[in-house]
Amino acid sequence: MGKNIVEKIMEAHLVSGDLKEGSLVSLRVDQVYTQDATGTMAWLEFEAIGLDRVRVPLAVSYVDHNMLQSNFMNADDHLFLRTAAARFGAYFSRPGNGICHQVHLERFAAPGLIALGTDSHTPTGGGMGMIAIGVGGLEAASVMAGMPFEFTMPKIVRINLFGKLRRPYVTAMDVILTLLKMLSVKGGVGKIFEYGGTGVKDLSVTERATITNMGAELGATTSIFPSDENTLRFLKAQGRRHQWIPLEADEDAEYSEIIELDLSEIEPMIAQPHSPDNVVPVRNIKGTKVHQVCIGSCTNSSYKMMKTVASILKGRTVHEDVTLFINPGSKQVYEMLAHNGDIETMIRAGARILESACGPCIGMGGAPGSGQVSVRSYNRNFKGRSGTKDALVYLASPVVCALTAIKGEIVDPFEAEIPLEEVNEPEVFSVNDNMLITPKKDRNIKIIKGPNIKEVPVKEPLEETIQAEVLLKLGDNITTDDILPAGSQVLPYRSNIPEISKFTFKNIDESFYSRAMEAKTKGGGIIVGGENYGQGSSREHAAIAPMYLGIKAVIAKSFARIHRANLINFGILPLLFSNPEDYESIEKGDILKIETQAIKNDQRYTVVNLTKNKSFDVYSNLNAKEKELILIGGLLPYVRNKVLS
Amino acid sequence: MGKNIVEKIMEAHLVSGDLKEGSLVSLRVDQVYTQDATGTMAWLEFEAIGLDRVRVPLAVSYVDHNMLQSNFMNADDHLFLRTAAARFGAYFSRPGNGICHQVHLERFAAPGLIALGTDSHTPTGGGMGMIAIGVGGLEAASVMAGMPFEFTMPKIVRINLFGKLRRPYVTAMDVILTLLKMLSVKGGVGKIFEYGGTGVKDLSVTERATITNMGAELGATTSIFPSDENTLRFLKAQGRRHQWIPLEADEDAEYSEIIELDLSEIEPMIAQPHSPDNVVPVRNIKGTKVHQVCIGSCTNSSYKMMKTVASILKGRTVHEDVTLFINPGSKQVYEMLAHNGDIETMIRAGARILESACGPCIGMGGAPGSGQVSVRSYNRNFKGRSGTKDALVYLASPVVCALTAIKGEIVDPFEAEIPLEEVNEPEVFSVNDNMLITPKKDRNIKIIKGPNIKEVPVKEPLEETIQAEVLLKLGDNITTDDILPAGSQVLPYRSNIPEISKFTFKNIDESFYSRAMEAKTKGGGIIVGGENYGQGSSREHAAIAPMYLGIKAVIAKSFARIHRANLINFGILPLLFSNPEDYESIEKGDILKIETQAIKNDQRYTVVNLTKNKSFDVYSNLNAKEKELILIGGLLPYVRNKVLS
Repeated sequence: MGKNIVEKIMEAHLVSGDLKEGSLVSLRVDQVYTQDATGTMAWLEFEAIGLDRVRVPLAVSYVDHNMLQSNFMNADDHLFLRTAAARFGAYFSRPGNGICHQVHLERFAAPGLIALGTDSHTPTGGGMGMIAIGVGGLEAASVMAGMPFEFTMPKIVRINLFGKLRRPYVTAMDVILTLLKMLSVKGGVGKIFEYGGTGVKDLSVTERATITNMGAELGATTSIFPSDENTLRFLKAQGRRHQWIPLEADEDAEYSEIIELDLSEIEPMIAQPHSPDNVVPVRNIKGTKVHQVCIGSCTNSSYKMMKTVASILKGRTVHEDVTLFINPGSKQVYEMLAHNGDIETMIRAGARILESACGPCIGMGGAPGSGQVSVRSYNRNFKGRSGTKDALVYLASPVVCALTAIKGEIVDPFEAEIPLEEVNEPEVFSVNDNMLITPKKDRNIKIIKGPNIKEVPVKEPLEETIQAEVLLKLGDNITTDDILPAGSQVLPYRSNIPEISKFTFKNIDESFYSRAMEAKTKGGGIIVGGENYGQGSSREHAAIAPMYLGIKAVIAKSFARIHRANLINFGILPLLFSNPEDYESIEKGDILKIETQAIKNDQRYTVVNLTKNKSFDVYSNLNAKEKELILIGGLLPYVRNKVLS
Repeated sequence: MGKNIVEKIMEAHLVSGDLKEGSLVSLRVDQVYTQDATGTMAWLEFEAIGLDRVRVPLAVSYVDHNMLQSNFMNADDHLFLRTAAARFGAYFSRPGNGICHQVHLERFAAPGLIALGTDSHTPTGGGMGMIAIGVGGLEAASVMAGMPFEFTMPKIVRINLFGKLRRPYVTAMDVILTLLKMLSVKGGVGKIFEYGGTGVKDLSVTERATITNMGAELGATTSIFPSDENTLRFLKAQGRRHQWIPLEADEDAEYSEIIELDLSEIEPMIAQPHSPDNVVPVRNIKGTKVHQVCIGSCTNSSYKMMKTVASILKGRTVHEDVTLFINPGSKQVYEMLAHNGDIETMIRAGARILESACGPCIGMGGAPGSGQVSVRSYNRNFKGRSGTKDALVYLASPVVCALTAIKGEIVDPFEAEIPLEEVNEPEVFSVNDNMLITPKKDRNIKIIKGPNIKEVPVKEPLEETIQAEVLLKLGDNITTDDILPAGSQVLPYRSNIPEISKFTFKNIDESFYSRAMEAKTKGGGIIVGGENYGQGSSREHAAIAPMYLGIKAVIAKSFARIHRANLINFGILPLLFSNPEDYESIEKGDILKIETQAIKNDQRYTVVNLTKNKSFDVYSNLNAKEKELILIGGLLPYVRNKVLS
């Protein structure tokens, strides 16, 4: 039976498991990269594992998210990441070198490899014919420690492209916006999209990368393109010809689904507020007044697209009512644009050039005014993400963006008064890796941690007896936001567990932190929850902080899947009521006693409520691996144990 | 008797008064400009005056301070300023067009004129042979409304320059650093520095502007250079030849003091933490390890200096341990650097190019890490100004900065391993005013105020009887920080008096705001202070907020000068104890009754303490103008009355 591209790559990386949809597979990983917002925690976790060097062929630590430097914290994080990279054998991409996904595509991505990145837009590398998947910090740390990457095999969906884009009016951005319209933001859940068909050759590597990057918005695990002549051309232009291999699906490869897409029928599209799948043809809303335009980000920062933008701006001025921000995705592109006069053109037109960083895309500066309309060549327009709650953010191609910036209203490229020029991909990119610090040989490098960076706490192995106080009794549907809020007050402490822990359950019970710290000295705490405990965002801090505060177990009627996994990863025992009505018998302040040996047997435990002098039954449904994790204190000690032995 | 330059210009602008040191003079003003941090309040105040158009020949509203746009507030302020400028007949310099002082020098400053700016570095224009003085928002608003500028005639000090700078090792920055070392940050208080002598012709206009800009750090009212061939050359290069007039002091002009300075003896200098006058020769501290370098700002952003920096960076890489920020001072310079390949050189070397804005100089981004050393070509290194409390900030020339960025430690240019090139001033500047919006003819333009921008409250005329509650009784040396704190929590509300008022006396008494709001409905409040009430920063909000909260009078043992003026400007009666021991007889919560008619007579008032059933005497020592202000409710209604009648 023929194989598709995903199967070919995975087979070559398979450690264990069966490449069947729904099966758990373990894969060898070639490259791991981090960005600074998630990377500080990932590298602290790697440090906690206790290894001397990373155990993957390539690790890169990028800085692109937190670059405004409004106080000492950003710069301290950068210094920590730089010294940690030097210490542990990773490349360090200095601030200003660009957005991780774009730089990685330019300098490291290669066909046939598997890469993990601690950012949801890691699938960008799929444009190169690489399996590139976004993961959490702890997962990245454990893979960097040499553990295989474990995940459940998704469905492989083929997207069959044919025809040619009507350039320069229609771009790769319009392809992915069209797919988002067709499939919705849930359309890719549990799937990998594999592109193929005759239309593939119409797309350059950077165009493919735009599509795989924003494929994340489909909810897909990742997306991937074949490796072909275009891939070779890009690698040659980057001085990396030797990293090319051809890669395509066999004729008789099988897919769980096939979607047909005619590139020649795609028209300029735009996502309206507040979802990337709220897509309509640009012509439907042309003439909408606009206050801000943003061009760049990891989605649309190729030299070709930026040059197209410059050609539109040339000799013109950004409309009086519009602010135009441009954030080139990488230093390479920025340098080339500067070399060829395009930066001059942009400045001359009145664009505000921001650093090569995520910038306004993640609300790091560039927030629109109250109720203002912003049209962006970025990948997300969730409500409030721009930094302004009532802003109306639209997503469109750089072509639509540039035309709109000049006109002051949304423009359909087919009706633009400005003649559009087709720009070619460069034959040779300007390769200058002087802002990539190569891994150091010296192993005595000191890792420098500013006052806001604290080591990750690691839990002790499971106690034989838990005797702890019920610190909170909660209702149904408690979210990870309830457990550990997000927001600008809390976010700066993501690398500081002792400090961020002070915000645990703060919006529910101001006294939680002080009560937990006291209980910690007397055997710890227990949380009692209702149905669906821990729903919402996947943030792992909602498990780390309670662990740090001495929470030994959560007893609930049911758990949200990801939060349950996070609890286990940090050694907190997730227990279920055998009889949900026992929930009623517990009160805040009760002291519960649990003998934990049952974990090794039938996982049914008797909880003695010492305060009420009653007892009731609970159970855990841990699989073999999860049992191991809980027993040893979580994934960090588990990995440490594996790799150090 | 011969005249000096200051006298010549002032004489041509004199409305009333005598140009004698210490006399009050009224001057006609040619130009007023604002920046966004102080400008929103200035334009709200102008709006409150009620005029249709500005009544000065030129008004310009710049945006350069608050450009990070971390939320809706910055963008809302920009929109307010743009629509206010359009409505009231001012130029609007769009965000990205550059720092007010640099742009103003390039495009508007002209010899022989008088300009006011709502920023302390307004004296930059003195490099052009213009009297340029920094003022508060209300002063700017009243001058824009057509009132003359009133001030007390300072001493005129001549600085006699001779010799030539040892270029390219020594720059204009080293001249002003040398003067700061000689004279200290208090050396210019009550003085205008007028430069002259044969050495003047060695300095270009932009070099002179560096000296007059940072002359603000001497505490001087302003500094000024003659207008000569170099001035003509600069104006020609800016396409403004017609604005040139020659201007020099008469041979027998008189000065209160003459300082001699030999340019040829000046060496590279550096200001150490935490004061601009803590100056030593660079060679004394060469080799000091550095983490951050910042080049640009309103002090050192000339094309010539930036090009010199580029020539140092060319083909090199910023030291691994250093972050180099460059913020070009204006779009003109930025465009020219981009045109000539210098921006490419900077990017290539790894510099992080920030927008043409104040940026790290005012702590708007670019904060160093904890305890890090930052060397900057800026004008101030006060503790904490960088955004990092324990950072160590040094000030030096762009040459020292660039060499330091490459080497990773402080470098004496005379010992630099990098050969230095002398760069010439350009013969022609790239003139492109497309980001300067000219005043509109249309008077129906709507001024758009975001939700955080509220009209300035205006006080009613003085009541005949004040009967109000003592809301606070304070000790000696209460600062304006005590009255209205600064800090990142408070600053965003500078255009929102109702909101910022909530912070009044917050650090002294959390309940002050709510008690004041309640007292306001029952006749208002009174503050009782000790000696030196209102010392510290000159912020006018420390008077506006109490006025908004219904404070009718402050009774104190003595007042700090500037705060007393601010109280009067906002219609709050500053009263002094006739017998300071009466201070003891008052308690918080007492209701005091004051008949105010005495203001028209001997200014001696009887205060009846209705709660204590006692009375005591107080007095005010208002001059004629101050009496008028208090009677009508402050400067805003005063100006309104003058200009509308």
